[in-house]
Amino acid sequence: MSVEKMTADARDAALGDATARGWSLCANRDAVTKTFVFKNFSEAFGWMTRMAMVAEQLNHHPEWSNVYKTVEVTLMTHDVDGLSELDFAMASKMDKAAG
Amino acid sequence: MSVEKMTADARDAALGDATARGWSLCANRDAVTKTFVFKNFSEAFGWMTRMAMVAEQLNHHPEWSNVYKTVEVTLMTHDVDGLSELDFAMASKMDKAAG
Repeated sequence: MSVEKMTADARDAALGDATARGWSLCANRDAVTKTFVFKNFSEAFGWMTRMAMVAEQLNHHPEWSNVYKTVEVTLMTHDVDGLSELDFAMASKMDKAAG
Repeated sequence: MSVEKMTADARDAALGDATARGWSLCANRDAVTKTFVFKNFSEAFGWMTRMAMVAEQLNHHPEWSNVYKTVEVTLMTHDVDGLSELDFAMASKMDKAAG
């Protein structure tokens, strides 16, 4: 998994896929964000726990906040000060796990 | 554990203890907040996981955000639209577990 900045074409394609799944570009920085809503706290935190394992595997960690059944996630790659393939990989895993 | 609004005396005493341990009153609402910093993501999320179990036990859930090794917590009781004994109980458990 590359941590280089993506080419414009690769980025456009990945961003198109992600926005179709509910992600949006942040207004103030080159990052993507999405709000996940679960049935209750247990479901929300269970999902966060599974995603925490993925974050450690990828050595790529989300910024996220949780209020009861809601989790707001922001993804960006500090090494490139913007979006990289790692963010889209993580976004995809998060969506699949949230099912 | 009561979910009534606290008396002024009980609240002052509990708030005095909590602020001595690093909690502070939020500017914009009747809630307390504290930022916990751990060694790394694994330590931070491990602590969050233990606190998630406590939250389920107490049926009292924090608002919290995590960025790598940092966890920012806000506690308040929605049922009383402000601080209750539950918040100070949770704050105390959080401090002990982070200790």
